[in-house]
Amino acid sequence: MALEKVRALTFDVFGTVVDWRTSVAREAAMVGNDAGVSADWPALADRWRAGYQPLMARVRSGELPWTNFDDLHAISLLEMLSDLGISGFTESQLDELNQAWRRLDPWPDAVEGLTRLKGKFVIATLSNGNVSQLVDLAKHGGLPWDVILSAELAHHYKPDPEVYLTAASLLGLEPSQVLMVAAHPPDLAAARAVGFRTAFVQRTVEHGVARAADAPTDPDADVSVADFNLLAEQLGA
Amino acid sequence: MALEKVRALTFDVFGTVVDWRTSVAREAAMVGNDAGVSADWPALADRWRAGYQPLMARVRSGELPWTNFDDLHAISLLEMLSDLGISGFTESQLDELNQAWRRLDPWPDAVEGLTRLKGKFVIATLSNGNVSQLVDLAKHGGLPWDVILSAELAHHYKPDPEVYLTAASLLGLEPSQVLMVAAHPPDLAAARAVGFRTAFVQRTVEHGVARAADAPTDPDADVSVADFNLLAEQLGA
Repeated sequence: MALEKVRALTFDVFGTVVDWRTSVAREAAMVGNDAGVSADWPALADRWRAGYQPLMARVRSGELPWTNFDDLHAISLLEMLSDLGISGFTESQLDELNQAWRRLDPWPDAVEGLTRLKGKFVIATLSNGNVSQLVDLAKHGGLPWDVILSAELAHHYKPDPEVYLTAASLLGLEPSQVLMVAAHPPDLAAARAVGFRTAFVQRTVEHGVARAADAPTDPDADVSVADFNLLAEQLGA
Repeated sequence: MALEKVRALTFDVFGTVVDWRTSVAREAAMVGNDAGVSADWPALADRWRAGYQPLMARVRSGELPWTNFDDLHAISLLEMLSDLGISGFTESQLDELNQAWRRLDPWPDAVEGLTRLKGKFVIATLSNGNVSQLVDLAKHGGLPWDVILSAELAHHYKPDPEVYLTAASLLGLEPSQVLMVAAHPPDLAAARAVGFRTAFVQRTVEHGVARAADAPTDPDADVSVADFNLLAEQLGA
């Protein structure tokens, strides 16, 4: 089958490898506690995550110059706190809060599954997160990446095709030799459009248990699995 | 001391982490054996390594457009074989020969020393080798890099300052927070010129035992050591 040509796997990270919502809510609650600020922290995590999307779209359209993920999150944090009327954080607490995105825990299957997959394939990140953030996440969670690839290396955000094509080029591979792994159908669709193979991983509770029933599926993916160990099994790793 | 600010270590790879000469000679002898070609393989390794330097200089001067390390080695291989009057390799054997640069063994202390250093610092490659080549070297030798950084990401070759500055920027650090580790004083001098701290590792037999007495030293480096375990000791890792 077509997957026999695959030599490298590129992984979306936020939501696919790490559970950003639970971790950001936890980290924000800790900083909030220090600052004497209270809030619905999981809802804040949701809103923060949603808030950087329009900023990223402005970078993609060329309205904003290249701005890395850390800086986009810092901007969307301030906008969100202002919208919600939350105040009381010092400069250094705001900075600490933004660093939450570097301390996200992997999903329970991630390290074991990646370790198995690494035995057969080159395993790479391919995230909108910036390189130093992805390095910190790997150290935090013990993620055994062979190589850190990022939108930052293309100065384009996913789903722009440049991100996927830059990754394939740096891996020294044809797009058809690379399998994009993500929990998000639009990411996979964009990878497929430039010739990547695709694997959908269903992270049912990415947006919390209450929204589990709305979790997406992707009938167009070459492979669909519930976790990375099952992905390793399907790929013979 | 000034090294207390250091958060990441960037490593030259060919000669500093891996023993290119012994490995290329071994791999070339194997391909030569298959092809029925005989040669002085260590001398060929020396000449091949020397042969890509002028090509790299032509990229640096802008005379040649950006050409990656793999392609420069392929060009210099053909030039060298023609100069030496060596023939008899098929296309696929020439390709196999060029892949020798992806199967280089680490120096005996490298994996243990890097593993110790990784516990305290971000450890990164910073090589003229291209990304996919550095990934293959890491898999071949079990090198535990946190992140693969390369001249390829700057589209400049060392010692151009852009290579070091791009690395610091991707690491999210000031140059003074990064320590360049190399067996080659010019590499360290260029890193120092843009504000990096520097560590010299003496790889006495990089060019063979016969040339051990000519191995360089670097009195300007912040640290000078004989291997990576001693580097870990000096840096408290």
